[in-house]
Amino acid sequence: MKPLSIKDIAKKASVSITTVSFILNGKAREKRISEEVIKKVEDIIKEIGYKPNQIARSLRTGNTKTIGLLVEDISNPFFASIARLIEDKAYKKGYKISYSSTENDMEKANSLINMFRTRKVDAYIIAPVAGIEPVIRELIDDRKPVVFFDRTLAGVSTGSVVVDNFSGAYEATKHHILEGRKNIALVTVDMDVEQINERFEGYKKALKDAKIDFRSELVTKIDFSLSRESTVRELVTMFEARPEMDAVLFATNYLAVSGLMAIKELGKEIGKQFAVIAYDDHDIFRLHTPQISVVDQPIEQIADNVIDLILNKLSSGDKLKEIDKVKLMPKLIIR
Amino acid sequence: MKPLSIKDIAKKASVSITTVSFILNGKAREKRISEEVIKKVEDIIKEIGYKPNQIARSLRTGNTKTIGLLVEDISNPFFASIARLIEDKAYKKGYKISYSSTENDMEKANSLINMFRTRKVDAYIIAPVAGIEPVIRELIDDRKPVVFFDRTLAGVSTGSVVVDNFSGAYEATKHHILEGRKNIALVTVDMDVEQINERFEGYKKALKDAKIDFRSELVTKIDFSLSRESTVRELVTMFEARPEMDAVLFATNYLAVSGLMAIKELGKEIGKQFAVIAYDDHDIFRLHTPQISVVDQPIEQIADNVIDLILNKLSSGDKLKEIDKVKLMPKLIIR
Repeated sequence: MKPLSIKDIAKKASVSITTVSFILNGKAREKRISEEVIKKVEDIIKEIGYKPNQIARSLRTGNTKTIGLLVEDISNPFFASIARLIEDKAYKKGYKISYSSTENDMEKANSLINMFRTRKVDAYIIAPVAGIEPVIRELIDDRKPVVFFDRTLAGVSTGSVVVDNFSGAYEATKHHILEGRKNIALVTVDMDVEQINERFEGYKKALKDAKIDFRSELVTKIDFSLSRESTVRELVTMFEARPEMDAVLFATNYLAVSGLMAIKELGKEIGKQFAVIAYDDHDIFRLHTPQISVVDQPIEQIADNVIDLILNKLSSGDKLKEIDKVKLMPKLIIR
Repeated sequence: MKPLSIKDIAKKASVSITTVSFILNGKAREKRISEEVIKKVEDIIKEIGYKPNQIARSLRTGNTKTIGLLVEDISNPFFASIARLIEDKAYKKGYKISYSSTENDMEKANSLINMFRTRKVDAYIIAPVAGIEPVIRELIDDRKPVVFFDRTLAGVSTGSVVVDNFSGAYEATKHHILEGRKNIALVTVDMDVEQINERFEGYKKALKDAKIDFRSELVTKIDFSLSRESTVRELVTMFEARPEMDAVLFATNYLAVSGLMAIKELGKEIGKQFAVIAYDDHDIFRLHTPQISVVDQPIEQIADNVIDLILNKLSSGDKLKEIDKVKLMPKLIIR
């Protein structure tokens, strides 16, 4: 049986097609259609199981009430928590979010953005990857609201919400120095991305300001694609090779977890002789014995600001007059 | 300027529209179009920035090469890890995944499924919520491949991948009993869902088989919507009220994390006097001092089976002849 059209419903209810259309689009009250007519039409719709063609509807109204979200890696608790907060906040405002992980892979990121375009999402929230500049410029040309978070891309003007990475690493390193540490290591990831580069700069500047020589042998750069197992192995070797090391700053949460596993394996004690600061707060660091100090990124604030920027852009038709850039401060939590 | 059509490209390249269409659809080599012509057309496409209408294309080919994934809560590491694995495996097979959290809310789940329908995803992977049976039946009637994971829904026939929850809780409780524990508590969530009910049954059956009386005062059901903070408070009170308790089984990973925080706060020692088993393995439990025993759900196998079922259904046109139901076994890891 051919599904009934709006015309059929109108005929059955003895009202005009326009009236049915208003009711289907939730404009019945605004258009002062009587409750009696609304009920009659709704009953017919329920009875025949009419489903409006939603693609046609989204083409007509021009919005799908959905937002595409790209994170680096959904299994990283920093991104998982932010995704969940953004999702909750957006849902309360009537927007659905769907998300995917880029794995920092330019090709995957481009193909995910194109997937979102095909599905006509209303807006984009992206932890960007180098190389996606052209497609982002196309989105901006199409007047699609785009907000970056966690990092930005040079030469692309979008709204963005970032945390001051330089200052996070600077304050953590400075804390180690004030505690009298002399041989402060940095464990970071071998990736040329803004947020990681800035943390490296913060570490170096804190040493410089304290007139401590920067020593490259105290910096370990782990390959991003390395497995958990291999990362732990590499860090065990590194810790064994540098017995003089009396403090370490881990530039990401997952490196800190691998580092704590290496430290546990070596039976190395965290405390007076050897101090640790991790990046991002997490249950793991609160539950660890001893508890681990962290550079805490304000994930609730990141999510709030991202959603505010996006909703603002959506409601103003993204006039692109002002580019909103928010920079939040991390908090050093000493435990 | 009006964007150029396929016709314009064909004219510019002095070839037929069919030739351009083959090239756009990646069938140039199959159709033995010369490399020279391919290059000429591709150069024109690049030069004019032609973008094929992807909605039209997906309507024509009938597939979008995307799969919708619904988890309970993406900030739960069990779901975050599975989502990431499913995403990786699907991407290698040419499918993009986008996911959302249902928060076990029927209304949200229904609205997310409708979002995926509007976007014409090719298939659905869902951790189902009671109340979504009607919309799932519609998907099945539309011959859309649907695979459930983590739990199923009575009265709905789809492919599914679950872990034996009864046996997970049974083996954990039995281990506590064999270790000589007499007052074994269960901390679980106040939700009427299959996987949680089965874990409760497994706990009760292990007690019964050992001729230990079931005592309801040793079972704590935490409200799913309770904050982390309040959960920890409630568990502190519970532990204080039951000093005779010598073992506990946590029925979910997030309850175990809250429980460990309560135990830490109370200064209660985990060991000879008091034993803990958590559900789902996680870095937190491996890094904890002492390490925490767990009922480990095989997340890699869950992801593999889910992807295999979905790809099978997609390639066979979902003939619906056989309903594949996979039940995996959890593993008790004693630490």
